[in-house]
Amino acid sequence: MLRRCAMRLRTFGATPARRPGAARRLSSSEKVIHKDYALPNPSWTKDLRLLFDQFMKKCEDGSWKRLPSYRQNPTQALQEFQTRFVDSKFKKEEQMSKAQQFSRSLEEGLGFEYVMFYNNVEKRMVCLFQGGLHLQGVPGFVHGGAIATIIDITTGMCAIAEGVAMTANLNIDYKKPIPLLSVVVVNSQLQKIEGRKLFISCTIQSIDEKTLYTEATALFIKLDPDKPLT
Amino acid sequence: MLRRCAMRLRTFGATPARRPGAARRLSSSEKVIHKDYALPNPSWTKDLRLLFDQFMKKCEDGSWKRLPSYRQNPTQALQEFQTRFVDSKFKKEEQMSKAQQFSRSLEEGLGFEYVMFYNNVEKRMVCLFQGGLHLQGVPGFVHGGAIATIIDITTGMCAIAEGVAMTANLNIDYKKPIPLLSVVVVNSQLQKIEGRKLFISCTIQSIDEKTLYTEATALFIKLDPDKPLT
Repeated sequence: MLRRCAMRLRTFGATPARRPGAARRLSSSEKVIHKDYALPNPSWTKDLRLLFDQFMKKCEDGSWKRLPSYRQNPTQALQEFQTRFVDSKFKKEEQMSKAQQFSRSLEEGLGFEYVMFYNNVEKRMVCLFQGGLHLQGVPGFVHGGAIATIIDITTGMCAIAEGVAMTANLNIDYKKPIPLLSVVVVNSQLQKIEGRKLFISCTIQSIDEKTLYTEATALFIKLDPDKPLT
Repeated sequence: MLRRCAMRLRTFGATPARRPGAARRLSSSEKVIHKDYALPNPSWTKDLRLLFDQFMKKCEDGSWKRLPSYRQNPTQALQEFQTRFVDSKFKKEEQMSKAQQFSRSLEEGLGFEYVMFYNNVEKRMVCLFQGGLHLQGVPGFVHGGAIATIIDITTGMCAIAEGVAMTANLNIDYKKPIPLLSVVVVNSQLQKIEGRKLFISCTIQSIDEKTLYTEATALFIKLDPDKPLT
């Protein structure tokens, strides 16, 4: 699937959400839309804050970069995407203006709390992830669908660093259950590129790297503006 | 992963949420907890209602059965599950009482609207699914993680009809993007059983069966009470 493009638009900055120097005061709904969710909030545990601080230090020399994360795409970026890739019959713009990015749609602390960091030399995307109480599958543990979501997002962001792309395959081995409210490290690595195909591997581990929770591979396909998605 | 067990507890009725004849009036929060979400609500489109009615007709002779769906497990069922399968160090019961089933955690119409029907002779689980505006991935389409979630749930319910089980692998081919607010049919079929392994196939198609959106296979492992999950 092709949800990666949205992230590219949001995070690699095709259109900045707020232009530098723009003095207009944002309304409360605009503040929510333009809020960067990949920053600490009161629901973050000490573990997540410590890891965040460690990675922010790695960003200081420019080798790593923190990726901001929003609930909605800036209007201009959305229009650009639709013009380039989406067949006109699917452009229900009025309704779609209310749509929200799935992984940011739950309230603070209850859903996906995460932040991603990218190393362009290593072609590696790391996601620090804390699963909230509304991500439950089996009692006390994160739902397999929520795990698939965080894998899709992390491998997807790794892919779209190479160009607008869509997921074609996810193959996920669930090895151990992830307790709710624990912090885990999602590690995603670009393995090879063959034409428009991007092959990416992914693991989810405990902070101390002693527990391997999940292993996955992902295949992404670079989008072609001459071939509409639908 | 093992989120299937929760569903078994909820849907195959280890403990009924309300005992017949219990006269006590439910508080508003209890009403939310005990609400069966697998029934029509105002957000359901005409397509989803029509399909629902068709399947309800199939239930009349007992060949198919509609599965109810809740946000939380009944307390007794939760305790039974934890006693049987979860190591004591993971039993944070106080916090966990606030946990919610991931696929039911978004508000009406904005997240996963779905209902499942099971045919025990055919070993087949059908899920009628409408993806709300907060499941967005790429602009206008359902997130790959949300698609993985509905596949995990449907194949999982097919598996646990054979016994409490956990997902070990999901392998998903994303063939075409699913537009937000459209209704699709998720079809899950038990293929074979080898010891504790359950092999299940899954497709997601348009209502007219002309569009194949997604194809997947799933492997589930039956749980063993002598081997805690964690």
